Amino acid sequence: MNRGVTPQSEDFSAWYNELVAKAQLVDRGPAKGTMVIRPYGYRLWELLQAELDRRIKDTGHENAYFPLLIPESYLQREAEHVEGFAPELAVVTHAGGKELEEPLVVRPTSETIIGEMMAKWISSHRDLPLLLNQWANVVRWEMRPRMFLRTTEFLWQEGHTAHADEADAMRETMLALGLYEEVARDIAAIPVVAGEKTPGERFAGAVRTYTIEGMMRDGKALQCGTSHYMGANFARAFDIGYTAASGQRQLCHTTSWGMTTRMIGAVIMTHGDDKGLVLPPRLAPYQVVIVPIRDTAPACHELAVRLRAAGVRVHVDDRPQLSPGFRFNEWELRGVPIRLEVGPRDLESGTAVLARRLSDAKESVPLDSLPSALPVILEEFQELLLRRATGFRDEHTITVGTWEAFAAAVSTGWALALHCGRPSCEDVIKTETAATPRCIPLAGPEESGTCVRCDQPSAYGKRVIFGRAY
Amino acid sequence: MNRGVTPQSEDFSAWYNELVAKAQLVDRGPAKGTMVIRPYGYRLWELLQAELDRRIKDTGHENAYFPLLIPESYLQREAEHVEGFAPELAVVTHAGGKELEEPLVVRPTSETIIGEMMAKWISSHRDLPLLLNQWANVVRWEMRPRMFLRTTEFLWQEGHTAHADEADAMRETMLALGLYEEVARDIAAIPVVAGEKTPGERFAGAVRTYTIEGMMRDGKALQCGTSHYMGANFARAFDIGYTAASGQRQLCHTTSWGMTTRMIGAVIMTHGDDKGLVLPPRLAPYQVVIVPIRDTAPACHELAVRLRAAGVRVHVDDRPQLSPGFRFNEWELRGVPIRLEVGPRDLESGTAVLARRLSDAKESVPLDSLPSALPVILEEFQELLLRRATGFRDEHTITVGTWEAFAAAVSTGWALALHCGRPSCEDVIKTETAATPRCIPLAGPEESGTCVRCDQPSAYGKRVIFGRAY
Ligand SMILES: [Zn+2]
Ligand SMILES: [Zn+2]
Repeated sequence: MNRGVTPQSEDFSAWYNELVAKAQLVDRGPAKGTMVIRPYGYRLWELLQAELDRRIKDTGHENAYFPLLIPESYLQREAEHVEGFAPELAVVTHAGGKELEEPLVVRPTSETIIGEMMAKWISSHRDLPLLLNQWANVVRWEMRPRMFLRTTEFLWQEGHTAHADEADAMRETMLALGLYEEVARDIAAIPVVAGEKTPGERFAGAVRTYTIEGMMRDGKALQCGTSHYMGANFARAFDIGYTAASGQRQLCHTTSWGMTTRMIGAVIMTHGDDKGLVLPPRLAPYQVVIVPIRDTAPACHELAVRLRAAGVRVHVDDRPQLSPGFRFNEWELRGVPIRLEVGPRDLESGTAVLARRLSDAKESVPLDSLPSALPVILEEFQELLLRRATGFRDEHTITVGTWEAFAAAVSTGWALALHCGRPSCEDVIKTETAATPRCIPLAGPEESGTCVRCDQPSAYGKRVIFGRAY
Repeated sequence: MNRGVTPQSEDFSAWYNELVAKAQLVDRGPAKGTMVIRPYGYRLWELLQAELDRRIKDTGHENAYFPLLIPESYLQREAEHVEGFAPELAVVTHAGGKELEEPLVVRPTSETIIGEMMAKWISSHRDLPLLLNQWANVVRWEMRPRMFLRTTEFLWQEGHTAHADEADAMRETMLALGLYEEVARDIAAIPVVAGEKTPGERFAGAVRTYTIEGMMRDGKALQCGTSHYMGANFARAFDIGYTAASGQRQLCHTTSWGMTTRMIGAVIMTHGDDKGLVLPPRLAPYQVVIVPIRDTAPACHELAVRLRAAGVRVHVDDRPQLSPGFRFNEWELRGVPIRLEVGPRDLESGTAVLARRLSDAKESVPLDSLPSALPVILEEFQELLLRRATGFRDEHTITVGTWEAFAAAVSTGWALALHCGRPSCEDVIKTETAATPRCIPLAGPEESGTCVRCDQPSAYGKRVIFGRAY
């Protein structure tokens, strides 16, 4: 195996593409834009999934499963929705040896089929709110695929909820956004910015779209999760209604929200460096790798047992055919936070050599201290990653007042700018700088003035984050 | 809601179809034969999945994810495989607004695409065994759909492994079968019989197929999980080979094995009665339901907190608009193992009324004893279900020596019979009695003689289980 990767500074995109393959996260599937998620990549997803699923359940949502294949006519019931998704659909026209009377689309998202079922399940105000979530695969035909970031098929969770009124649905929309922000920050160590999308960046069929945006190490933005308030758009299209306490028939207000395998791409591009992946301990398939040197493998496996008992995910790499140096490099490339080297002399002195993924220093530590020390060291590493990523994001986010400063800021990161809110002005900015409005940050202070590009009065009452995006 | 169901004895099939809907396990999807798994049904699946997933990981397998859409040509590489699946395929012919150059099939199973990747990942004997598992949805067009049992789309896990030789692959095949037997018995309380399929019942492309078979309460058999030894059939078709220690290039031997959402159907039909579902505590979404009577809801919620801390899955049904009797019936229909009724007088005396799902007796128990008593009571209930199902199975399994006894046995359950092993004789038996060979039980004693139907010498060296099957 050729284990080096192109340096980030030389070609970030090549670095990424080489790394996802060489770290054995993913492989190309045969159909255009599809991916095979290999065990190391899938374990990352499972760990993220467990964290998010627990929070989704703790906030009162229930998981369910809806069919993959949706009649084409369902999508057509919500005009904006079908317009948004039609170009990306994969369509089943034949099944069971025959041509189907009505083609079935492979779900690109499940608003329509879940809407149809919600209409059936909800009759009274007592049935509300209805809080559903689904873990599933979806298919959106992808012209410019990139592993994890834009793939024809991806995995996600999609929350779908129905409420009695706008206030309750908006509370839900923000609750889901909050879960995403928490998981991104506390688990993936990504200091995302939560905010609202401008109208041009809304989900097809939504009244309001919220997002969490992460800054990658090339300064670009990656949308890491979105939460949508649909108003009564889908309720009207699918007749999702209820009888209020007053006896009156009313339409529900619905929401939907999703986080996907794209998050693995976010982890890679937020923390990785020229040596390879750098994984946050809370998502690392192996938090610690033990490399036996010469004939210490049995002692290393014993140590692993004690570390596992202390709750540490540990792997012993005892491949005798590979040199220690080769194995060190491989686990650096694959982003394991902590490496322990154990040679015969270490064993004699009852110690191991401990190396951290982001430091060249090594230290000798007593074997007996490791079960209690490693959980603390891993926690420190987790915090270091968040601190480091927050520093990077803040250094590359510039509050700008002039068009020149704007153009400079979005060439290396994000610009915080006042904007008029006109789609035509957004288009001009995109053409000239490749930057788009990422979000109107929830936490931004109130501010007004004139548009950074066209000098018309600013919109939104606060600054907008602009950046180039994945 | 009309809550009664047709009695089992009157029409087992109507009982089943009414129950899965009224217990809110499932709903019909819009495309032919598809199902919506509602939260109560999906939670059952999640609990089963967690038990199986842990065992799969503990035995050294890793989860991965392979694409849903498979080029049609892949399936054609293994002749028996394509012949077996061609009539059931759903085919994507259009995507991204264009007709595809090569149609893509929605995976009916993943041997072919995983075989293609295994060939890429395996080069040396050091890469073996390769032990993979996938949790996924699959699609097989279904002409006679029945919820959970035969649906166009279903959920499952599929294990796929590659080995250096037949011995290692056969060990794996039996290991997987053992996991299924254990989960069925210890978690779902289904006393399945493990055995080998006769050649006519093998998986398309397999050299040997093993199964676990459960007896439903109508005496029919339900295949609950299968494990296949593929020999080198898929290795040959996809060129899955390795360099042996000797330096020689060799073909791998592969296995595959699957358990599906059909298991939910097995639970329903193994334990259910005329009142509705009866759920084994280890799979019950709610192990205990507390029904407050009059104004005791706050005390019931406090009790629920204490029970949850004791590891019990508990639900408080505090719907004031429904009478206690209505709520009792509903939770009986939905199969909750234990019901606690708490009225004002119970609270005064510090007790609750405890009712078990399979008994008409009620007893008064001190509230303070419940956190320690309920886990024991639930364990007893779990054991009772397994004992009851084992008794039922044994009573309905008859060792037969004559054709008359055979025909009588398969009209109410299973026949243990000597059989010649000829497919034409199997066909005659099927035509005359609707019974098919379910399996050659692994645990059956050695025995030979003449075929129960045609008097030719018996095959397999032991008796075969025959029964009508789902
Ligand atoms: Zn402007
Ligand atoms: Zn015969």
